[in-house]
Amino acid sequence: MKIIGVDLGGTFVKIGLVDSSTGEILKKSEIETKVELGGDVVVKRIAEAISNLAGDQYEAVGIGSPGSIDKNNGIVRFSPNFPDWNNFPLGPKLSKILNKKVYVENDANSFALGEKWFGAGRGKEHIIALTLGTGVGGGIISHDFLVTGSNGIGGELGHVIINPQGPLCGCGNYGCLEAYASATAIVRMAKERRKKFPNSLIFKNEEITAKAVFDAVKQNDRLALMIRNDVVEALAVAITGFIHTFNPEVIIIGGGVSKAGDILFEPLKRRANELVMPSFKNTYEILQSPLVENAGILGAASIVLQREKL
Amino acid sequence: MKIIGVDLGGTFVKIGLVDSSTGEILKKSEIETKVELGGDVVVKRIAEAISNLAGDQYEAVGIGSPGSIDKNNGIVRFSPNFPDWNNFPLGPKLSKILNKKVYVENDANSFALGEKWFGAGRGKEHIIALTLGTGVGGGIISHDFLVTGSNGIGGELGHVIINPQGPLCGCGNYGCLEAYASATAIVRMAKERRKKFPNSLIFKNEEITAKAVFDAVKQNDRLALMIRNDVVEALAVAITGFIHTFNPEVIIIGGGVSKAGDILFEPLKRRANELVMPSFKNTYEILQSPLVENAGILGAASIVLQREKL
Repeated sequence: MKIIGVDLGGTFVKIGLVDSSTGEILKKSEIETKVELGGDVVVKRIAEAISNLAGDQYEAVGIGSPGSIDKNNGIVRFSPNFPDWNNFPLGPKLSKILNKKVYVENDANSFALGEKWFGAGRGKEHIIALTLGTGVGGGIISHDFLVTGSNGIGGELGHVIINPQGPLCGCGNYGCLEAYASATAIVRMAKERRKKFPNSLIFKNEEITAKAVFDAVKQNDRLALMIRNDVVEALAVAITGFIHTFNPEVIIIGGGVSKAGDILFEPLKRRANELVMPSFKNTYEILQSPLVENAGILGAASIVLQREKL
Repeated sequence: MKIIGVDLGGTFVKIGLVDSSTGEILKKSEIETKVELGGDVVVKRIAEAISNLAGDQYEAVGIGSPGSIDKNNGIVRFSPNFPDWNNFPLGPKLSKILNKKVYVENDANSFALGEKWFGAGRGKEHIIALTLGTGVGGGIISHDFLVTGSNGIGGELGHVIINPQGPLCGCGNYGCLEAYASATAIVRMAKERRKKFPNSLIFKNEEITAKAVFDAVKQNDRLALMIRNDVVEALAVAITGFIHTFNPEVIIIGGGVSKAGDILFEPLKRRANELVMPSFKNTYEILQSPLVENAGILGAASIVLQREKL
């Protein structure tokens, strides 16, 4: 079966035609979102891009969208990326133009589904997925079911508080996972400590990035190691909680920060193994997302597979 | 339908004949567990007590047992309360004697089911249940499904770390919820601070108990208020995480500590409301378990209802 996956972002929309049996992206394209033109125009532009890409040679469309989603009705309730979209019927509007079924899901949840159908969670029924990007997103599959909760807004794993004495988070609380493990938090930690470590390799270019921090870790830069260790500790504490709560088979970590690879994952695996209770040891794996640049499109396409399975 | 609920404890076994349509306990009895006699004798004694109570005028038996349970096979994998039970086939053995279906579930999970079928969670599909007793137990019902995870050992909400700089927990980690909100932790906090507050009302009787602490809160005792506030803060941080994760309709709190009532629940509700993200406000209720002394039997009976529903 061929499916369209739409990775809807605040700046760009990535669209792919996916072969559902192999997970291959047969064709893809990218357009600017142009939020400022209003929801109806955005929907029209997406519809055009889909038709240009695939004609009508596909079964259905899955859209991964940031924000709070009414998944049953394909409605974007609200989204920080689309300030004017309040209860915007994204799914129904696109479906009407294309005359195809359209399913909408929160983008972090769709990342989790993408891992289940095409990534490191294939064949698994118990998956915790984290995306470490500008923020920290979470998606939970438990007993083969996407956990979204009574209003569909659950899975906010970035806003689990892991240290009430920790740094202020964008959400207003202190010590959320996002305040430690997002790219934003990593840059903040570097800036906060710059005075004490002015010669750190992190600052050799003008722009301070999470990537610069992890590059400096590879050079054994002292500040970079400190920051890396704080990120690892926060992730390990949070993940231990998720393991004790969900007893998952895999914890899959994606997003820009995950590209740090072994220098992040090896100490994280060690520390999580120290923290989990004895009965949970060796019940789980912590894995880097293999989907990389295609995670958005494949996740979006997976929404269709998960919904039509039920 | 009539069901037998067996609340299996380390010291006593409580058995009840439950009318599944009303949640009424028609008859009940209690025997000593006598673990020291060995698993087979314990099973025989339970079978006798059930027959004495109800003849064979019941449909099936549900057992809530402490420990790690293989629910599909009715096996107690291991339990701190029954040191000799390793992979002990509790369900099959009892079923063979009684010639009835027997379902076994972890006792904290069965508490959650009891609330769903007969308590504060009736008609709800998204329930977080916490028992604050000697330890802190957790049970999760999400999308009407009991979340137990890939090995059936999930739901250990007492061992979610809420403050890595917090007190040592029995599990070996620091700052688990159980290290703040169990009766054991409350007594520990009182003892630790006794030197500074030797005249606290908590110490007016020789035995220091969680109840003595909450009684002293009612008298505005300073140490008691400090301890109560620490318990509230820990519960609020943990529950906020559960709300962001599961988006539940209710969080139901039972166990001995919950009997403190309003002096625990009112500040807890206020603090949780401060901590949850805006989109989660007013999406949940925090409720005291109404089942009290019958929670164990009703929870055990509910196992049958939940399993036979599926």
